[in-house]
Amino acid sequence: MACNRSDVPIESDLSEKFRRLVEVGLALTSERNVPVLLGRILLEARRFTCAEAGTLYLVTPDGKLQFSVVQNDRLGHSEVLVGNDSRPITIEVLPTSIAGRVTATGMALNIPDVYALPDSCGFQFDSSFDLKTGFHSQSMLVVPMKTPEGGIVGVIQLINVRHPGAEEVTAFPKEHEELVLCLASQAAVALSNANLTRDLQLAYSEAIKRLARAAEFRDQDTGEHIERVSQYAAAIAEALEFPPADVSKILLASTLHDIGKLAIPDSILLKPGKLTDEEYAKMKLHPKLGADILAGSENPMLHLAAEIAISHHEKWDGSGYPRGLKGDEIPLAGQICAVADVFDALSSVRCYKKAMSLEEASEFLRKETGRHFSPRVVDAFFGVMDKISMIHSRFSA
Amino acid sequence: MACNRSDVPIESDLSEKFRRLVEVGLALTSERNVPVLLGRILLEARRFTCAEAGTLYLVTPDGKLQFSVVQNDRLGHSEVLVGNDSRPITIEVLPTSIAGRVTATGMALNIPDVYALPDSCGFQFDSSFDLKTGFHSQSMLVVPMKTPEGGIVGVIQLINVRHPGAEEVTAFPKEHEELVLCLASQAAVALSNANLTRDLQLAYSEAIKRLARAAEFRDQDTGEHIERVSQYAAAIAEALEFPPADVSKILLASTLHDIGKLAIPDSILLKPGKLTDEEYAKMKLHPKLGADILAGSENPMLHLAAEIAISHHEKWDGSGYPRGLKGDEIPLAGQICAVADVFDALSSVRCYKKAMSLEEASEFLRKETGRHFSPRVVDAFFGVMDKISMIHSRFSA
Repeated sequence: MACNRSDVPIESDLSEKFRRLVEVGLALTSERNVPVLLGRILLEARRFTCAEAGTLYLVTPDGKLQFSVVQNDRLGHSEVLVGNDSRPITIEVLPTSIAGRVTATGMALNIPDVYALPDSCGFQFDSSFDLKTGFHSQSMLVVPMKTPEGGIVGVIQLINVRHPGAEEVTAFPKEHEELVLCLASQAAVALSNANLTRDLQLAYSEAIKRLARAAEFRDQDTGEHIERVSQYAAAIAEALEFPPADVSKILLASTLHDIGKLAIPDSILLKPGKLTDEEYAKMKLHPKLGADILAGSENPMLHLAAEIAISHHEKWDGSGYPRGLKGDEIPLAGQICAVADVFDALSSVRCYKKAMSLEEASEFLRKETGRHFSPRVVDAFFGVMDKISMIHSRFSA
Repeated sequence: MACNRSDVPIESDLSEKFRRLVEVGLALTSERNVPVLLGRILLEARRFTCAEAGTLYLVTPDGKLQFSVVQNDRLGHSEVLVGNDSRPITIEVLPTSIAGRVTATGMALNIPDVYALPDSCGFQFDSSFDLKTGFHSQSMLVVPMKTPEGGIVGVIQLINVRHPGAEEVTAFPKEHEELVLCLASQAAVALSNANLTRDLQLAYSEAIKRLARAAEFRDQDTGEHIERVSQYAAAIAEALEFPPADVSKILLASTLHDIGKLAIPDSILLKPGKLTDEEYAKMKLHPKLGADILAGSENPMLHLAAEIAISHHEKWDGSGYPRGLKGDEIPLAGQICAVADVFDALSSVRCYKKAMSLEEASEFLRKETGRHFSPRVVDAFFGVMDKISMIHSRFSA
């Protein structure tokens, strides 16, 4: 879409702009990754209006404004501040600030020159960013991101209309106000949907992990074993270049690898001494019992969990149980979980034994490669040893 | 939005139509109930074009077309065929049918008169519906519901442009093709999002229920007890006019009411004879142990589950455990689960006892109202006795 030059009447391309707005709406509502979505929202709003800079604020649950995306073509700067590791800056919603005013009233503000605001208007431009960077803010279009239910989830602040090649900054034309308001509403819906999906996924994985931990706690000193095994397994899967969705599935499914122990009586599971042959035979039923609990579901995560449960005690050379599978007859997720499970058992303290050092445990993996463990999986494991150590130390801290 | 009369040039309101399209997109993408959404999609597409009838087909996973919504103003008929209880009709995608052709090619068809299709066009109108109902199909605009990734998730078939008050049916103007294609794409995204949310919710609840059942199976003959308790509890919550979202939460959270039994040793939990005082005291710890497993989460479902776990053995007169709460000091969800749990224990077979009849079990509830049970909850229970009997018989069948 070409930007309007001031010599082209705005009205002539209004229908074209609306057409483009529908396209943008489609793109936004199908994006489910929240940080990607936020960057995209601001970029599209800037493209629409030829704004050379912009800021997207999100309204936090306690009613503050959070700097979430900052883009500035003039300074060559583009950053999404919300996501996994970053710590976004949160500011009070002062009704005397421009974004604060928009949040409080739910109305857009179209300001030709932020340095020429009359004192009487009741809000002011904060020039600290300009002073710090040498950037000169002039025109601004600031719109609320309103959901159809009327809630304000954020504010889009567009700065300086500058047409390609033009020197001068112009004001945002009145005709763009409605378009950007529409875009902001589409963005608000897209964001609510993406947040809902993320919250549901978080709730899902938290609930599964807790129940897995609860099931495990009959025979473990702590619930940390399954948490670590799950993180080790996910790290290995990443190293083996599993797609992100499959890594997430492994992360969750591997927490359930020992769920079959629920069906093993206390007298065997908790026996302090050595098991008799008969008791050991019963104990070795837990992979099959776990698969029975988990099998027969259409849920892909549970399906994978059943596969892991039944195959995590198989060995590469065929000497494992319950099916005595060999090499790549063993499902890959089971091969991965075997490495993660044994490595963690060796490298952590139990009530009846000390922990091996990471070096000793690694040495054991190396020695058992091609016997107990899949060579490919062990390779992948050592390829992410830094990550493995980090997970290990996170828990022992 | 007024429908175009043929004497008004279409172009003049194209921008207005796009504006409206953005609004429709917003409304569709914020609707998360799939059957409601499907009805809405077809209605909006018909409003856009003044179509007096229409059909929405969904593409099934095995590549068939499913009649999903049928609307016909002339016959006064409007029905959504997919949902909880209805069984939608599925048809083969014949490339010789109109909807089949659109599905196969991914291109819209705009047909002025379906009875005047030339033999050479390679597809035909199926007149059986017209013959059966006396309706006369004439003009049709049939468009694919395409996601931004290019997948076709359904087909919207719009029938007969008839402007308000007009007698004659006209053809769909060419200018409407793009608008309806855009609307269909918005609908496709909205539907994908709603399906994703629904699938995630289903996966979530299936996984929780399975794990709850697995945890329970140490002391139960079958896993059916918790399934029934959960359904009874949800039926009571509905009778007490809980909002649907809270009913769903109770349905899931109540499956976890006895999760604390995971922490009770086999020697007590599975003891065939009577428990000693000391053993009984340990057994009575299970509500608190369950709450410990579930507590401290920000997940509202787990929060409710913890509340139910710790309070489902409290009694209305204060003689229950572990906290000896009285009357409405007991969380309402706990009051509900107490009725559901005891009613099911009485009315089902266990290895050591026969089942009471529903009448006998109901009589017990009545006698214990105001002592063990909350009068309000027992009232609600008897208010939905039909539903309770249905749930009971579904499992004994």
